Amino acid sequence: MVNRCAPIVLLTDFGCRDPFVGMMKGVIAGIAPGAPVIDLTHEIRPQDVFQGAFALYRAAPYFPIGTVFCAVVDPGVGTDRKAAAIQTQNFTFVGPDNGLLWPGAAADGINTAVTLDNHNYFLDNISCTFHGRDIFAPAAAHICMGMTLTAMGPCLDQPVTLDIPSPEPVGDTLILTVLDEDRFGNLTLNITPESFNAHYKNDSFLEIGGISITDVYTTYGDAPDDTPFLLPGSSGYMEIAVKNGSAAFNLDGSVMDRVRLRGVSRP
Amino acid sequence: MVNRCAPIVLLTDFGCRDPFVGMMKGVIAGIAPGAPVIDLTHEIRPQDVFQGAFALYRAAPYFPIGTVFCAVVDPGVGTDRKAAAIQTQNFTFVGPDNGLLWPGAAADGINTAVTLDNHNYFLDNISCTFHGRDIFAPAAAHICMGMTLTAMGPCLDQPVTLDIPSPEPVGDTLILTVLDEDRFGNLTLNITPESFNAHYKNDSFLEIGGISITDVYTTYGDAPDDTPFLLPGSSGYMEIAVKNGSAAFNLDGSVMDRVRLRGVSRP
Amino acid sequence: MVNRCAPIVLLTDFGCRDPFVGMMKGVIAGIAPGAPVIDLTHEIRPQDVFQGAFALYRAAPYFPIGTVFCAVVDPGVGTDRKAAAIQTQNFTFVGPDNGLLWPGAAADGINTAVTLDNHNYFLDNISCTFHGRDIFAPAAAHICMGMTLTAMGPCLDQPVTLDIPSPEPVGDTLILTVLDEDRFGNLTLNITPESFNAHYKNDSFLEIGGISITDVYTTYGDAPDDTPFLLPGSSGYMEIAVKNGSAAFNLDGSVMDRVRLRGVSRP
Repeated sequence: MVNRCAPIVLLTDFGCRDPFVGMMKGVIAGIAPGAPVIDLTHEIRPQDVFQGAFALYRAAPYFPIGTVFCAVVDPGVGTDRKAAAIQTQNFTFVGPDNGLLWPGAAADGINTAVTLDNHNYFLDNISCTFHGRDIFAPAAAHICMGMTLTAMGPCLDQPVTLDIPSPEPVGDTLILTVLDEDRFGNLTLNITPESFNAHYKNDSFLEIGGISITDVYTTYGDAPDDTPFLLPGSSGYMEIAVKNGSAAFNLDGSVMDRVRLRGVSRP
Repeated sequence: MVNRCAPIVLLTDFGCRDPFVGMMKGVIAGIAPGAPVIDLTHEIRPQDVFQGAFALYRAAPYFPIGTVFCAVVDPGVGTDRKAAAIQTQNFTFVGPDNGLLWPGAAADGINTAVTLDNHNYFLDNISCTFHGRDIFAPAAAHICMGMTLTAMGPCLDQPVTLDIPSPEPVGDTLILTVLDEDRFGNLTLNITPESFNAHYKNDSFLEIGGISITDVYTTYGDAPDDTPFLLPGSSGYMEIAVKNGSAAFNLDGSVMDRVRLRGVSRP
Repeated sequence: MVNRCAPIVLLTDFGCRDPFVGMMKGVIAGIAPGAPVIDLTHEIRPQDVFQGAFALYRAAPYFPIGTVFCAVVDPGVGTDRKAAAIQTQNFTFVGPDNGLLWPGAAADGINTAVTLDNHNYFLDNISCTFHGRDIFAPAAAHICMGMTLTAMGPCLDQPVTLDIPSPEPVGDTLILTVLDEDRFGNLTLNITPESFNAHYKNDSFLEIGGISITDVYTTYGDAPDDTPFLLPGSSGYMEIAVKNGSAAFNLDGSVMDRVRLRGVSRP
């Protein structure tokens, strides 16, 4: 159910230097005057669909019912990849059908999905390289104004999926994946605090780039300076952090690196 | 005609690190409570009036009727350069009279222009270095609230002009200018797809920094990796791009570079 | 007195790359639908409480009565530092009680301060590392909706203070401190134009890193290129600037550097 007061939330890899995001907002202001627009981030690494999908997945639950997410990380723009809108239990997700929308939409429970192909809800002229402005922003604005998805295109039976990797058990080791690196250099691991606590033993340790990490804290403030440690992050995943430093820099770690949690209880 | 619901759109070279843009928004919120404010960009290169003018020119047509553009790239702040407001067919442009407003305003059809000099519509204290906060933001907010331009200052007969360079024909060559470089490293050329197609022949090629480019695609997806090619960009100009790379970096190209389109039909 | 139309203003060190600020806005949109939200800046250097406090202090007077400032630069998040809300003559300041709120709140005249500890006004789940989302954003949104501070926690007798350093007189010298460096490389000094003019004599000069600066201008435009000079900045402090250059870069100056203003009238 779309709610007039609920925001349109933008996530792109367009950056803030060029006027691209501003143009999208201009299009939205023309179709849905007064609709609140929130920037989730525009600094997704160019064409990194996974990073965009993970940010959307983590952030969506903090938005009110009726929020329309308009997400554009779109290396296939202008090719035959589909444009999609997905109605979930609480939200609507609009963007390219390349997996970007999947984790967030699936986690909320998908009700309906359509392929956006009704040109009445696009700009008059569609460029081959900027569907964010010409297709996705107008579609999101029309949805915000109450347009039903079924008017905007035919049913999309199976949106492209994209899965967040799970821990892989190998003997007494869990192979984990770094899902994200934030501004502070914290590295997000694909394991929840609950799962971590269930398996972590007295002599367990995390191995990353030849370095072993054993300390676990619950706040940055409690940890000693310059020493990597593990802590439950704010998004429901364990993180590697360095107080007054950067785990990413100190450990030369980056997204999609695989690290080993050794000596754990057999999962 | 000013429309309460239409946004105030900000473009500056102030960046987002300092609280300057936030102060402008505070001033606007005090004068025009609830007026929607949209950031076009604040990452114009410091004092690069051309880059700001070109961004404003390209973006303006995507905004609704009644939009007030408040643009500040202002190397002459505090000197005798004028402060201007220009009413066009659909919009109002507010900013320093240094050419920044010209291409966008002229393209929309200028109705009236005034020199902003009525202190009733400024902040009480005017600094010598931040007219964005002290003059332009309050003026834009008053215009958004319905104030007429003629109340804000005397007629400005001829705003300072700034022209976007045109292709220069020399024999069977067109000398083109790089107008912009975006986040992805795409280089915007000062030639429309229509003009390009009218002149480009089978053996035509673009010469940039000793490299010849012959391939033309319509999407990034269709092009091979790491090879520079030409494509029609989203703003009505041809672009040089490199899929999964950066034309600016690969070709060492940058704004205002002049490149040659050789072997074209005599324009 | 809180005013529905007055904005919630955000200042953090979270940057714009990660979805953290967007999550805070999602939380606000859920509690205070339609409340205008303004970004003051999110590019405070990580954990630099002084920089955040100084930006808040300089910017606050430009916002309308009733504005709620929600500021988060919070190296002690999750430890026993308090969460605070401070009602001043015109505004409300919400954030960690670590000095961040002090200069802006004190300058406006403090009426009431409370320790935020009533969990009814927080999110249901409080992480140990992201109180911006879980405590401060919801508190600011509830205040924006009219909740009184006294309902949100017990009186906080003395918020943590943080003072902006004053010039230190030593004989005929004033020892000044660089308070800020902006995007253009201008260095803000802790002396007002009034105080500067009262003490500066014909043979006075500023000494920074072995270089002497004697020229004073009132606009960037009047100064010669590439030569450091002094001018009254837009925030009520003297600045060191270099036209078409960067004082910070040219003089290797940075925040908290101490410089000498020599040969001044005895203060």
